[in-house]
Amino acid sequence: MHEVVIAGVGQTAVGEKWEISLRELAFYALEAARVDAGGLRPQALYLANSLAPALSHQSHLATLVADFSGLNGIEAASIEGAGASGGLALRQAYLAVASGLVDIAMAIGVEKMSDQTVSGVHEAEATTTDSDYEAEQGLTPTSQAALLMQRYIYEFDVPEFAFGGFPVIAHENGVHNKNAMFQKAIRPELYQRVGKVSDPMNMFDIAPAADGAAAVILTRPELLPGEFLHPLVRISGSSVVTDTLALHDRPKPLEFNAVRVSVERACRQAGRLPSDMDMFEVFDAFSIYAAMTLEAAGFAEYGMGWAFAQNGKLSLDGELPISTFGGLKARGNPSGATGVYQAVEAVLQLRGNAGENQVQGAELAMIQSLGGPASTVATHVIEIVH
Amino acid sequence: MHEVVIAGVGQTAVGEKWEISLRELAFYALEAARVDAGGLRPQALYLANSLAPALSHQSHLATLVADFSGLNGIEAASIEGAGASGGLALRQAYLAVASGLVDIAMAIGVEKMSDQTVSGVHEAEATTTDSDYEAEQGLTPTSQAALLMQRYIYEFDVPEFAFGGFPVIAHENGVHNKNAMFQKAIRPELYQRVGKVSDPMNMFDIAPAADGAAAVILTRPELLPGEFLHPLVRISGSSVVTDTLALHDRPKPLEFNAVRVSVERACRQAGRLPSDMDMFEVFDAFSIYAAMTLEAAGFAEYGMGWAFAQNGKLSLDGELPISTFGGLKARGNPSGATGVYQAVEAVLQLRGNAGENQVQGAELAMIQSLGGPASTVATHVIEIVH
Repeated sequence: MHEVVIAGVGQTAVGEKWEISLRELAFYALEAARVDAGGLRPQALYLANSLAPALSHQSHLATLVADFSGLNGIEAASIEGAGASGGLALRQAYLAVASGLVDIAMAIGVEKMSDQTVSGVHEAEATTTDSDYEAEQGLTPTSQAALLMQRYIYEFDVPEFAFGGFPVIAHENGVHNKNAMFQKAIRPELYQRVGKVSDPMNMFDIAPAADGAAAVILTRPELLPGEFLHPLVRISGSSVVTDTLALHDRPKPLEFNAVRVSVERACRQAGRLPSDMDMFEVFDAFSIYAAMTLEAAGFAEYGMGWAFAQNGKLSLDGELPISTFGGLKARGNPSGATGVYQAVEAVLQLRGNAGENQVQGAELAMIQSLGGPASTVATHVIEIVH
Repeated sequence: MHEVVIAGVGQTAVGEKWEISLRELAFYALEAARVDAGGLRPQALYLANSLAPALSHQSHLATLVADFSGLNGIEAASIEGAGASGGLALRQAYLAVASGLVDIAMAIGVEKMSDQTVSGVHEAEATTTDSDYEAEQGLTPTSQAALLMQRYIYEFDVPEFAFGGFPVIAHENGVHNKNAMFQKAIRPELYQRVGKVSDPMNMFDIAPAADGAAAVILTRPELLPGEFLHPLVRISGSSVVTDTLALHDRPKPLEFNAVRVSVERACRQAGRLPSDMDMFEVFDAFSIYAAMTLEAAGFAEYGMGWAFAQNGKLSLDGELPISTFGGLKARGNPSGATGVYQAVEAVLQLRGNAGENQVQGAELAMIQSLGGPASTVATHVIEIVH
């Protein structure tokens, strides 16, 4: 297999983009990544999207985006795995370039959620659960996370407001990210005051549905000029692992088993340990997911992930910085695009271009996106090329 | 890159499978392919599906199918590109194995179209067009094909009933395929007698929406025992090419440009010419698509593809056998699964296991699936390993 590097990254601001269409959103990210990569033209485009067939009545989206973006003729395929779609598209782009059959590939994620009513979004999101057995009973991804959090609180007997550390860190990191949906810090007192949305989760435990697009361009380093525009970032570990789609099929629902296995595999391929990581873009769609992910990945004991978010241990200057540009919670969660946003943000960190959000000395990062309650897990380890 | 072979194939019968669910359909094909491959367990599953989010309220389908089929934990991703989805999934499985990072990959296609009303199916299919500009005006893939056929008849001044050769051949080849939706030959007189469905297309110019699933298992030959269960089939050429999504954006709408380029690239990689092919599984979703494909692929002059279907030239014992098990028209067209059915059928031909449908001496085959009016084209060249 060939070595694969990320040569360009691009993103749009995240939020409610009423004035921008689905295809335009994708185009802005695609073009930004091409400019960042000195004009490289991808031969293949892997487009991550989770909900456009339902929300925008548009499938066959990869071909549409290639066409609309002036890349008529190139290879294109849409890739889907709910919230992990972005990570899956990155994986496909990686495999394509690693095979030597594709020289330059783009992974792009786009989601446009504001064109629909809130109930329309929930209905669409419910299709990502086991529809015949879960959505059928009224379950949505949000209520699924609430059930997990309730069970967690019961099993591990955690203190009230235990999960508040996650949204506090995310919003702190969102303050200086001009692409974030929310650029305002919150205090622990506010977290404790707001009402429940899906008991026991409150508003701050749930990342907001949003519009956005992000893109990365992958290639083999030997195809680039010796003096490139910016430092290159190598993909040194890549892994996709699945678990049961339905939560009720898990013997131990409080253990994100696919997170554990996927982290192990990505780290083994990279020749690194999770503890080597300078930062971790974690999938904090719900506070409970962030806690359970840190546990399954080996950063905390089961039942203690929430405590790891206390006392600045996960802040930019802490032991393991997470959600460094605000995470899903403050940057916003444009579902299928989120995994690609994580890649863009981690690349900016490793290049040393993260501005006020810079993790000092970051050379090695892990990024991970989840489809459902870790039913699909895509993990990548990336590192700066010296 | 590594050499990639198809080690196992499986399929379900195609038709209206009211009694079988989406996940069960997929499971039957997956299991049949595993049995055919001597029990090989795929590490990665690329699932082609076009319409399940709309028709079955189920996305995140690759993970569901892996889970339901007892393959909990493996890598999985859903791949979509309208009618080309099956060809795209085959391409992703090929790239994964070619990279050396995945040892055994499955491409599986599944579609369940009978759970919805006919208007529900048309509405879902319309999302594969350029929704904001085409579906918005009431266009569906069927009416799009009718517009192309009308233009073709006008431009090339072809005789009445010119396209009848395609459905006649397809239905002839479907007679002995126990998995075909229609196992009954039709006479040219019948084609000429039936009423128009979408003028100028009649019922026989349009392949039927159907339920079905098909699967192939790909691996590297050196990972298999020397004496394998059956002859291996090598993927020697693979290409995906796109064109504009909207038909109105094409300067020459009667030329399937992406078909031409994709065939050229797949053949070049294989070191073969289109004229070397012993058979061609063509995407005959509409008679007009079959004609235009044969022209763009170089088998007939523009405006003369319909004539190539006369006098048995495309029959099993003709110059270039097409639709050898009935094609989309008689086998049935389970949209996202169709491209994988084509691979299964071509492998059976090259192994010499096609029974009454056998193309004598077939050693080299081309298969091709189209998303929209060749907006996405996936072409593969496969050959028997001696």
